[in-house]
Amino acid sequence: MKFDDIIAKVQECGKKTVAVAAAQDSAVLEAVREAKKRGIADAILVGDEPKIREIAASLEMDLTDYEIIHEPDMAQAALTAVKLAHDGKVDMYMKGLVDTKNFLKSVLDKEVGLRTGNPLSHVAVFDIPSIDHLLFLTDVAFMTYPTLEDKVNIINNTVPVCKACGVDMPKVAPLAAVEVVNPKMPATVEAAELMKMNEEGQITDCIVDGPLSLDLAIDPEAALHKGATDRKIQGDADVLLFPDIHAGNLVYKAIVHMTDMKNGCILTGTKVPVILTSRSDSFETKVNSIALAAVVASNQ
Amino acid sequence: MKFDDIIAKVQECGKKTVAVAAAQDSAVLEAVREAKKRGIADAILVGDEPKIREIAASLEMDLTDYEIIHEPDMAQAALTAVKLAHDGKVDMYMKGLVDTKNFLKSVLDKEVGLRTGNPLSHVAVFDIPSIDHLLFLTDVAFMTYPTLEDKVNIINNTVPVCKACGVDMPKVAPLAAVEVVNPKMPATVEAAELMKMNEEGQITDCIVDGPLSLDLAIDPEAALHKGATDRKIQGDADVLLFPDIHAGNLVYKAIVHMTDMKNGCILTGTKVPVILTSRSDSFETKVNSIALAAVVASNQ
Repeated sequence: MKFDDIIAKVQECGKKTVAVAAAQDSAVLEAVREAKKRGIADAILVGDEPKIREIAASLEMDLTDYEIIHEPDMAQAALTAVKLAHDGKVDMYMKGLVDTKNFLKSVLDKEVGLRTGNPLSHVAVFDIPSIDHLLFLTDVAFMTYPTLEDKVNIINNTVPVCKACGVDMPKVAPLAAVEVVNPKMPATVEAAELMKMNEEGQITDCIVDGPLSLDLAIDPEAALHKGATDRKIQGDADVLLFPDIHAGNLVYKAIVHMTDMKNGCILTGTKVPVILTSRSDSFETKVNSIALAAVVASNQ
Repeated sequence: MKFDDIIAKVQECGKKTVAVAAAQDSAVLEAVREAKKRGIADAILVGDEPKIREIAASLEMDLTDYEIIHEPDMAQAALTAVKLAHDGKVDMYMKGLVDTKNFLKSVLDKEVGLRTGNPLSHVAVFDIPSIDHLLFLTDVAFMTYPTLEDKVNIINNTVPVCKACGVDMPKVAPLAAVEVVNPKMPATVEAAELMKMNEEGQITDCIVDGPLSLDLAIDPEAALHKGATDRKIQGDADVLLFPDIHAGNLVYKAIVHMTDMKNGCILTGTKVPVILTSRSDSFETKVNSIALAAVVASNQ
């Protein structure tokens, strides 16, 4: 499956609805309009209504079919919007102009937020032309230095996203610079522990093989060349689990800023998928992120 | 300057000579032949002469113009080859079939090796289509968890490589997931320290600005968008200094295995440039690495 297939799948499942926190943001409104046009999602716009109408007018965006809830205070708008998701009135929750700190505060709010008991993690889904399936990169934006336990949680958060995208038994590669355990490199030791936990049934619904270098994880030819024929993953990993945020974020940004490969991102570990795109994300990434959230919501 | 310019520059400076340790390796011989054909380098082939001749025959490679030194033992072949570089008889030193451990042992040999007193580091030079200059990635293969002192040494090793490639005052970006100092992220603290050391004249011949996220380091549009107008680097970094080997190696392999962007790599901190390509490197990477070594040798 590639990104276009995700969008086709969402169109099949029927439009979802997203609540936007502080929707007075032109880039977010443009993405929301495109998602509606392509049959991905309707939106409830929570925020400063006069500003929303002003921006929409400047975009020549017709607001007739949108529910708008007026709430000029941004932190309060986030709480109002997240409650719609909490109460099951919408399927996804998306950040608008509200800053990340207040947005996450709303996600984690004990009364109206989207906690599940699991820690939150981030997944970036990439459509790489030379690879015939989607790649799920985690965590490139949220968890900084995940412990072994955190990594288990990240895997548990990511597997349902893979399933929603049609990957029933995802192959998870805990990455490192090398593919062998080296006691001087803690990331390799933890990667091997994750594999063992998977073999012993403590991590389920996926196949974990680590430590893996990136070539063995994603390049079948390199795996063959290196003679990695006894490994569970031979260049066919679905999930790339990074040792820490520096590695994850730098790889993520290398792909985004050196190539034009498509991606979409969501926060997981929440009651409904959360879309936390940043101002610097492209229009296409924002639309893809809504589509990704919608397909995950369809599967929840 | 791009990779083709490096090759043009070497052709201008006149052919260099490389000594190959255990040259009985078909991929290495093919690269050496191409380098000779393109006027980049001649080679002295040290190793098992009958095997070298056998492989050359299978490649239809004419050995008339090559000096061959027969030494069937691989570790000994490395010591013989490195001594040629040590004694100034050749300009570069390259790994053949000998394993990495014995190859590095020869590089570090106190009598015939290439020590300078500086620690060794690795630099990978990339030609990225969307960027109008070369990118120098370090360290993606050699130093595992560089300390602050190591990072200073890495910069000192890399600046001459930049200069050899025509970048007189390279901009060095110590990378992290974020562009602000966060005491909970040691990589950001060290990055800021490197910038300070540069401002105070302890790191010279370059401009250091860190911590930097990768978008601010390599994407001028992203830098503008994020309002980074007061920074010394605004999407125009030459050197990407990675926090550790996981981050560096994963980015390196992401570029190599997801795209077809050109690169060449050498070891630095040695008396002459050392070419340590691996079996899984492409033919083009091997030739580019010889060219990179030759242009650095021309400048030494």
